[in-house]
Amino acid sequence: MNALVFDGTLKLDRDYPAPRVPIGESLVRVLRAGICNTDLEITRGYMGYRGVLGHEFVGIVEDGELKGARVVGEINAYDGTCPTCLRGDVTHCPNRTTLGIVNRDGALAEYLILPTRNLHRVPDAISNAQAVFTEPLAAACEIPDRVHVRPTDRVCVIGDGKLGLLCAQVLHLTGCDLLAVGRHADKLMILKRRGIPTTTDPALIRGTFDVVVDCTGQASGFELARKLLRPRGALVLKSTFHGAQEMPFAPIVIDEISIIGSRCGPFAPALRLLEKNLVDVESMISAEYPLARGVEAFQAAAAPGMLKVQITM
Amino acid sequence: MNALVFDGTLKLDRDYPAPRVPIGESLVRVLRAGICNTDLEITRGYMGYRGVLGHEFVGIVEDGELKGARVVGEINAYDGTCPTCLRGDVTHCPNRTTLGIVNRDGALAEYLILPTRNLHRVPDAISNAQAVFTEPLAAACEIPDRVHVRPTDRVCVIGDGKLGLLCAQVLHLTGCDLLAVGRHADKLMILKRRGIPTTTDPALIRGTFDVVVDCTGQASGFELARKLLRPRGALVLKSTFHGAQEMPFAPIVIDEISIIGSRCGPFAPALRLLEKNLVDVESMISAEYPLARGVEAFQAAAAPGMLKVQITM
Repeated sequence: MNALVFDGTLKLDRDYPAPRVPIGESLVRVLRAGICNTDLEITRGYMGYRGVLGHEFVGIVEDGELKGARVVGEINAYDGTCPTCLRGDVTHCPNRTTLGIVNRDGALAEYLILPTRNLHRVPDAISNAQAVFTEPLAAACEIPDRVHVRPTDRVCVIGDGKLGLLCAQVLHLTGCDLLAVGRHADKLMILKRRGIPTTTDPALIRGTFDVVVDCTGQASGFELARKLLRPRGALVLKSTFHGAQEMPFAPIVIDEISIIGSRCGPFAPALRLLEKNLVDVESMISAEYPLARGVEAFQAAAAPGMLKVQITM
Repeated sequence: MNALVFDGTLKLDRDYPAPRVPIGESLVRVLRAGICNTDLEITRGYMGYRGVLGHEFVGIVEDGELKGARVVGEINAYDGTCPTCLRGDVTHCPNRTTLGIVNRDGALAEYLILPTRNLHRVPDAISNAQAVFTEPLAAACEIPDRVHVRPTDRVCVIGDGKLGLLCAQVLHLTGCDLLAVGRHADKLMILKRRGIPTTTDPALIRGTFDVVVDCTGQASGFELARKLLRPRGALVLKSTFHGAQEMPFAPIVIDEISIIGSRCGPFAPALRLLEKNLVDVESMISAEYPLARGVEAFQAAAAPGMLKVQITM
């Protein structure tokens, strides 16, 4: 089959072996997939991953109990029997594989396999282009799943990349007093149209926030987030990025702030938000490429100013 | 009056002006005070403080509604009217002064003043030597006040200094599965006598913990704490120390851990624990000096292996 493979360099493999389906898993014919910043990071060496890239997709199940269903899929395949899984933290299973990220071929191919229990039927009201956003939208839903965001809270989202725009839209729905901070007026316009206050100039921000979400993926974003946070506030770290950074410790203790790491999230609420049209994801699609032009699509996705690039099979 | 003053160097001032008492405050004749690591840090430049040192004390109120009462006192004097105070976070009042730490003369003197509302009567069952521990014990009580520590949790306290020993004793009372990690068998013995498992060799620790408390005041302690923490666990930062440190960010996000800064705590539960004899603080007293030998007491407190040094007036 055709597959977009990373083995140190990114290339289209027209003769990649189709996956064999183990017991408990399903074969999915991919209809459409997305390129995420994590995919770009992997092509720069992140996670040391080798194989088919991609973890955002919508597809049709080819076999088994869900045969014929249009589905999206949670990306962490877990054992379901270890203490971590039995505590409910299946996305942290120490024996997990992760679609297109850890020891499991990804979605940028004609076919993929995932455990059947990871698959979710996509309601008819959701288009294929929208459905591909289920995974990153679930990651945004992870914030209110981990942190109690009150309608009375003052909340700031820093970063107007793809994840920042999704986090801002999800948090906006809590009724909180929200401000989105970014560097690109055109990207922030997607939020402005939803009635979300935005700014490109952090120097103009007055006062502090109960919750600050750092979606910048940069050290400078963390430092701004800390400065905008009130004592005893929650700083949500949403971006995975390479390397370490200098962090002053005394202010964390003196101001008694909480720093909360947040990664993959729950699919069911993400699908509900998409079905009810409560978030705008289609405005975030910058370009669409066929799989055969996948390498070109990655170059486009890495260009400044780009939001989501999707691939059709 | 006699007072132990830091003005760049530490010295006994035999002619320091006695405090004048503003409306809303009370004059307290200090009976006994303690030397805290924060005091030692201040003499090394921390907080840029100048004035009478000390914030752990027991004393007798000399005037006003509490006249004659034996009291301890919360160290942050707050305005009670700003948004931070009205939210209940009075220890974070932006206009606060802090006894012996920020713009308010401290307890290592014959007299001090504090707002009357900061004072707590000391039950008769509590000795003066015990009462001086109310402030650091309150700081230990801040952990369960900020983090939900479950009786079913596996909890690790790292650091066998004064604060570590108090934190371990307080957390032990939740019924949790507790392990205290330190470097000094003699200090850990205080915990062992309470039935708390201890180790001096982190390499022997198996498995991970739901909650890890870092009381080491050192970068190496933080790194050990992170390694011992399970995914989605809580890392409580209890130590204030100078400077920044390198922190890898990706593991915080990937493991979705929470880092929670914790500083001053509530006095009422600390007094209840002391009154009921549920924590052993007296074993933590290494030495006792009269105020006139205060400079010598500071030298003793800074020596390796020392726990609490108390000063009598």
